[in-house]
Amino acid sequence: MKQLNVGILGLGTVGGGTYTVLKRNAEEMARRTGVNIKVTHVADKNIERANALTQGEVNVTDDAFALVENPEVDVVVELIGGYGVAKDLVLKAIANKKHVVTANKALIALHGNEIFSAAQKMGVMVAYEAAVAGGIPIIKALREGLGANRIEWIAGIINGTTNFILTEMREKGLAYQDVIGEAQRLGYAEADPTFDVEGIDAAHKLVIMSAIAFGMPLKFDEVYTEGITQLAQADIQYAKELGYIVKLLGITKLTDKGVELRVHPTLIPEKRLVANVDGAMNAVVVQGDAVGPTLYYGAGAGAEPTASAVIADLIDVARLKDATITQRAPALGYQADQVQDLTVLPIAEINSAYYLRMYATDKPGVIASVTKILADRGISIDAVIQKEQPSDTTETDMVVLTNKTVEKNMNAAITEIEALAAVTGNVIKLRMETLG
Amino acid sequence: MKQLNVGILGLGTVGGGTYTVLKRNAEEMARRTGVNIKVTHVADKNIERANALTQGEVNVTDDAFALVENPEVDVVVELIGGYGVAKDLVLKAIANKKHVVTANKALIALHGNEIFSAAQKMGVMVAYEAAVAGGIPIIKALREGLGANRIEWIAGIINGTTNFILTEMREKGLAYQDVIGEAQRLGYAEADPTFDVEGIDAAHKLVIMSAIAFGMPLKFDEVYTEGITQLAQADIQYAKELGYIVKLLGITKLTDKGVELRVHPTLIPEKRLVANVDGAMNAVVVQGDAVGPTLYYGAGAGAEPTASAVIADLIDVARLKDATITQRAPALGYQADQVQDLTVLPIAEINSAYYLRMYATDKPGVIASVTKILADRGISIDAVIQKEQPSDTTETDMVVLTNKTVEKNMNAAITEIEALAAVTGNVIKLRMETLG
Repeated sequence: MKQLNVGILGLGTVGGGTYTVLKRNAEEMARRTGVNIKVTHVADKNIERANALTQGEVNVTDDAFALVENPEVDVVVELIGGYGVAKDLVLKAIANKKHVVTANKALIALHGNEIFSAAQKMGVMVAYEAAVAGGIPIIKALREGLGANRIEWIAGIINGTTNFILTEMREKGLAYQDVIGEAQRLGYAEADPTFDVEGIDAAHKLVIMSAIAFGMPLKFDEVYTEGITQLAQADIQYAKELGYIVKLLGITKLTDKGVELRVHPTLIPEKRLVANVDGAMNAVVVQGDAVGPTLYYGAGAGAEPTASAVIADLIDVARLKDATITQRAPALGYQADQVQDLTVLPIAEINSAYYLRMYATDKPGVIASVTKILADRGISIDAVIQKEQPSDTTETDMVVLTNKTVEKNMNAAITEIEALAAVTGNVIKLRMETLG
Repeated sequence: MKQLNVGILGLGTVGGGTYTVLKRNAEEMARRTGVNIKVTHVADKNIERANALTQGEVNVTDDAFALVENPEVDVVVELIGGYGVAKDLVLKAIANKKHVVTANKALIALHGNEIFSAAQKMGVMVAYEAAVAGGIPIIKALREGLGANRIEWIAGIINGTTNFILTEMREKGLAYQDVIGEAQRLGYAEADPTFDVEGIDAAHKLVIMSAIAFGMPLKFDEVYTEGITQLAQADIQYAKELGYIVKLLGITKLTDKGVELRVHPTLIPEKRLVANVDGAMNAVVVQGDAVGPTLYYGAGAGAEPTASAVIADLIDVARLKDATITQRAPALGYQADQVQDLTVLPIAEINSAYYLRMYATDKPGVIASVTKILADRGISIDAVIQKEQPSDTTETDMVVLTNKTVEKNMNAAITEIEALAAVTGNVIKLRMETLG
């Protein structure tokens, strides 16, 4: 039987999972592919950990650069993370005509254009199924399974940490500050959770899906990103009363004016399947012009779910390493010379429905004034809640759901609303998607 | 640009959708594949309909056998359905060294072993993404995206007609007989709905997924099939009270004793995502040993959703038609010589939890007797509902949820329960899956 020699860079959580699953299911995979996919080399700074796991069955080194130069290695699996040394190693592996599999979303999101271009020149594959939504085979679905479609939009819960936190906030009525500690204790959030809770990790994944869906270069710098740290419990509860659930969504849409590319807390109707994706799970909704809406759900992180995606890529490499470039699915889903620069819309230019909350004197006049401000800008209202005022004050929360408008129009309306004498403080604005 | 000449057999709903989508998205697909995927030939008995759609741009014939012999055709798309002439045409196309794409689940389920063997000999591809769950790319997910996993089980809502009917029954409190007419009027059910409502269509799709998942031959004759025509409204409502939703599931599991392969109405906890898949939509849950549970959702039928899957296969053919056999994903997911005969368990040997409903005298003694019968067979009880008896009778419905046991053990217990003097008539038995 033919053998594919795999060199793994980084034997941490995902690297260890990949090693374990490849060993456990070796026979099954050989039956599928007709190839013996075998880890022959490992590079890790922690030699002891690597030796303990690989039990002398593999060449272990602490010199990652030696591994990517090693002529015995057919494919390099980069599981170090980040975009410092990982980038150098991936480019070096490509220069040495090695195929590359990586789970590194930051690397692909920021340096994918350069990496894919280098791979194209050398005729090698760079596969990255594990970089988006962990074990869910969403890259393959977008790039191959839905290849007949013009993709219209994608909306995904693509960060498990924030989905866990939002689920806890909704179910237990707790504030963000009260949940983040629990998430850290349970291992769902890191000691410094910034990347996750500020939406940066989701932005990495979103920009990758956007590029594949629309055949455009990766434009990480142009993703609008808003996290969940400022999200108030009150808004989660009011949304619930109105039949909506708040999720951190990565959303990308192809419009006549350009591409929307944004990560932010979003109200979704509770009847939508994706609204019911709870805890640390991920799900991606893809709308194609022929297929309509489809949804892909699974674990977005974890050792073995991520390994599942890494190994799916290895199976593709095992099959197609000696194939011609046109026999492989192209790196970004489109032939390299067919990737087109598309304009990414600034957030002020996107189109959305909105949830607004304001703190106002409980007078009939307030609703009339707010309605007029919105109507003058062509924004119609879908629903209003005005809470009974507490006994010790004449002010109360007023919540308005609007129809769709351009965001800058909504922002101008909000400025006018905030100038009303009866309204105290800032208007809270959340975006809303029907995903219908 | 290279061109792939496509010949379509049958220009009905799916054929028309395929033609339309291929034409509408031709440029997009060429950008993806670098190949011009073009319908050059069409065979349909209704020449007028075919000419009206293709507007003189395509060679139209009413002789399907001439099309599959035509040297200009690279790939034959079989969209006739059934397994009479469709089988002959597919085998003839293969004999002529043409690749084949089909949406025909009955054909693959019943004759796939013979067809794949012929294709293997001739070195051509036979692709059938559209045969299971319409536009959802589930075949690609099972065969490639989850290739790292040992698949443990699959459970799917894979028939839109029955899911529509069950959704209506639950939401509107109507009986099967009252909904089937509406389903027919809306085009969700055919004039003779037998194939759908008796679970046969779901069995076709299930046996295909089972073969790919476990690397076994297609064994349609061994699928246990139970439809929804006997399902009572009362059971849907009792299930709801207990926190369950009744769905027609296709279930296949690999166990130590053999493969479970069964289609039947099933109680699922309402919290599961798949329990919330309503109307005519499809969803498949796949449990892999590495990835855990994943779910795939979308339209399971309809012209363009099905066309989406047909064309995804054409894109694979465009890429891989000149590739070697090992460079392609094998027809049944495993190398041809690695498909293993596995025993399919008779329904009496499967393992399940159960919902039982009996009509009994409302005496404390009945619960004690039933509990004892079950306990003597090692079956524990999870929940009991005993309804208040109507004023005009001393009898009432009693519902019991049990833990898992082998079905023959449950059947024996039911025989004993039915022999109790306090129990009238037969015990209604439904299977229950936690899908956890």
